Amino acid sequence: MRDVAVIGVGMNKWGELWDKSLRDLIAESALLALDDAGIDKVEAMYIGCMSSGLFTDQEHLASIGPDYAAMCPTPGIRVESACASGGLAFRSAFIHVASGLADIVMAVGVEKMTDVDGAGATFGLATAADQEYEVYNGITFPGLYSMMAIHHMHKYGTTRDQLAQVAVKNHKNGAKNPLAQFRMEVTIDQVKNAVMVADPLTILDCSPITDGSAAVILCSMDKAKEITKRRLVKVIGSGHASDTIQLAQRDDLSFLKSTKLAAQQALAMAGRKIKDVDFLEVHDCFTIAEIMVLEALGCIAPGKGGPSTADGLTALDGKLPVNASGGLKSKGHPVGATGVAQIVEITKQIRCDAEKDRKVKKADIGLAQNMGGSGASSVVHILEGI
Amino acid sequence: MRDVAVIGVGMNKWGELWDKSLRDLIAESALLALDDAGIDKVEAMYIGCMSSGLFTDQEHLASIGPDYAAMCPTPGIRVESACASGGLAFRSAFIHVASGLADIVMAVGVEKMTDVDGAGATFGLATAADQEYEVYNGITFPGLYSMMAIHHMHKYGTTRDQLAQVAVKNHKNGAKNPLAQFRMEVTIDQVKNAVMVADPLTILDCSPITDGSAAVILCSMDKAKEITKRRLVKVIGSGHASDTIQLAQRDDLSFLKSTKLAAQQALAMAGRKIKDVDFLEVHDCFTIAEIMVLEALGCIAPGKGGPSTADGLTALDGKLPVNASGGLKSKGHPVGATGVAQIVEITKQIRCDAEKDRKVKKADIGLAQNMGGSGASSVVHILEGI
Repeated sequence: MRDVAVIGVGMNKWGELWDKSLRDLIAESALLALDDAGIDKVEAMYIGCMSSGLFTDQEHLASIGPDYAAMCPTPGIRVESACASGGLAFRSAFIHVASGLADIVMAVGVEKMTDVDGAGATFGLATAADQEYEVYNGITFPGLYSMMAIHHMHKYGTTRDQLAQVAVKNHKNGAKNPLAQFRMEVTIDQVKNAVMVADPLTILDCSPITDGSAAVILCSMDKAKEITKRRLVKVIGSGHASDTIQLAQRDDLSFLKSTKLAAQQALAMAGRKIKDVDFLEVHDCFTIAEIMVLEALGCIAPGKGGPSTADGLTALDGKLPVNASGGLKSKGHPVGATGVAQIVEITKQIRCDAEKDRKVKKADIGLAQNMGGSGASSVVHILEGI
Repeated sequence: MRDVAVIGVGMNKWGELWDKSLRDLIAESALLALDDAGIDKVEAMYIGCMSSGLFTDQEHLASIGPDYAAMCPTPGIRVESACASGGLAFRSAFIHVASGLADIVMAVGVEKMTDVDGAGATFGLATAADQEYEVYNGITFPGLYSMMAIHHMHKYGTTRDQLAQVAVKNHKNGAKNPLAQFRMEVTIDQVKNAVMVADPLTILDCSPITDGSAAVILCSMDKAKEITKRRLVKVIGSGHASDTIQLAQRDDLSFLKSTKLAAQQALAMAGRKIKDVDFLEVHDCFTIAEIMVLEALGCIAPGKGGPSTADGLTALDGKLPVNASGGLKSKGHPVGATGVAQIVEITKQIRCDAEKDRKVKKADIGLAQNMGGSGASSVVHILEGI
């Protein structure tokens, strides 16, 4: 396999984008990424999207993407793994370039979620859970994650305030990110007293419904050195694993095995240990998720995610900054776009392109973790500035 | 890139499978392919599926697939490009093995289409066309292909009987295929006098709504030689291209540019010419499609597809057998499964495993062409027995 680098990134302002369609969103970030890389074409376009069929009645994004980004006959490949679709699109593009089949490949992540009514978005998202055994019985994602939270609290003594602190931290970061959907800070009391969604999770423990996209351009290392004079962001590790789709079939409700395995693969490929990672973007679809992900990655011992968050370990100025972008919680969560946006953020931090007031102190090695459903699929990438 | 071979194939009996769910279908073909290869696990599972969300309310097949085939934590990757999803899953698995990241990878194609009512299936399929500019104005796929047929008839003098001959030939082949959905022969008169769907296409010019799956196992050539003593089926060429999703934006309604470009790529990779191909499986979603595909591939000059079919060129005992399996027309068209089933058929023919009465005379090099929508995406593969 050849060495691969990220040479361009693009992302639009996320939110409720009533004036933009799905195809507009794809084209917008794709063109921003091309501009950023200083090139005008790619050899293939991977598109991470969870459910354009249910959200917008449009499948065949493998054609819509290249067509509306004015790239025909460039081939498109739509990749889906629920909320991990973006991370998987990036991994697929990485494999494509690493194989030697192409030198320059784009990964775009996109989701247009607000053109359906509230029940429609929740229904669409629930198709990432087991339709026959979970959803049929009435549960949707806030309920699944609330069970994981309750188990974590029961097993380790994680507190309600510690959960809330994840939201407080990520909103503090997101408030400084001009592309984030919800740029307001929140307090622990506000999180705890917000409208209840699924006990103990209030609406401020949940990531929002968002329209948005993000794009990155991957390039073989040799070609990348010809194209750009900026700091190269090398993909040093990539990992991917699955778990049972049903929570009920897992050994431990509050441990994300797929994330652990994906991280082990990525670290082995990189020849690094988790302590070598300077900062992370992780999948905080709910506050409890960030805590469980950090434990599964091995950054924090199982059960210590809550106290460590409360102690400031993962704050922007902490020893291990997590979700400097604002995370899914504040930046927004257009599901298929999230995994690609994580790579956009890590690339910006490594290149020192992030806004001044939200730069992490040390940004040589960043890790991105993106997962689908209640952790039934996980993708982990490690990027290093060289 | 490393050499890659197909070492196992599996496919269930296609039809209206009321007693099997989407997940059953995936597992059934996956396990058949493992048995055929004589192995018990793979390193990754690609799943081609067009619209499990709209057809069955279940996304996240990247988790459902490995989970219900008892393969966790093997990673799953769902790939979508409308009716080309299966071919693209195969191509993605090919790239994965060729990259060196894994030695043994599975590609499964699946679609469960009969659990929705008639309008639902037609609506679901129509999401492969341009929702905002085509479907919004009331057209669905039979209408799009009827316009292509009318243009072809007007431009080249292709006749109604020549279109019907495609169905006659493919049903003749499919009648001998125990896995086909519609195993009856039809006559030209029956095709012409069947219920009209979109003039000039009757229901016997259209491929059916089908439940089904198919799976193939790809392996690095070195490893394949260790695993199997059977004839190895090497993937010598792979190509993939896009075209505008809207028919209205194309230069020529009756020429499939994406198929031409994908074939050129695959032939270049193989170092072969189209005349070196012994037999083909192509995307006859409608009778006119097979004619246009053969012209785009360069097997037959533009405009000569109709007369050549009528003359028997593409019959099972003709000089260039096309769709010995029965094609989409008779075998059925569970959209995400079709592209993988084409590889199953080509592998069986090359290995001399096809039923005796439908073996092609010479089966050293086979070509598979799979396309999405009205040809907005095309995938072409060339396989050679070695």
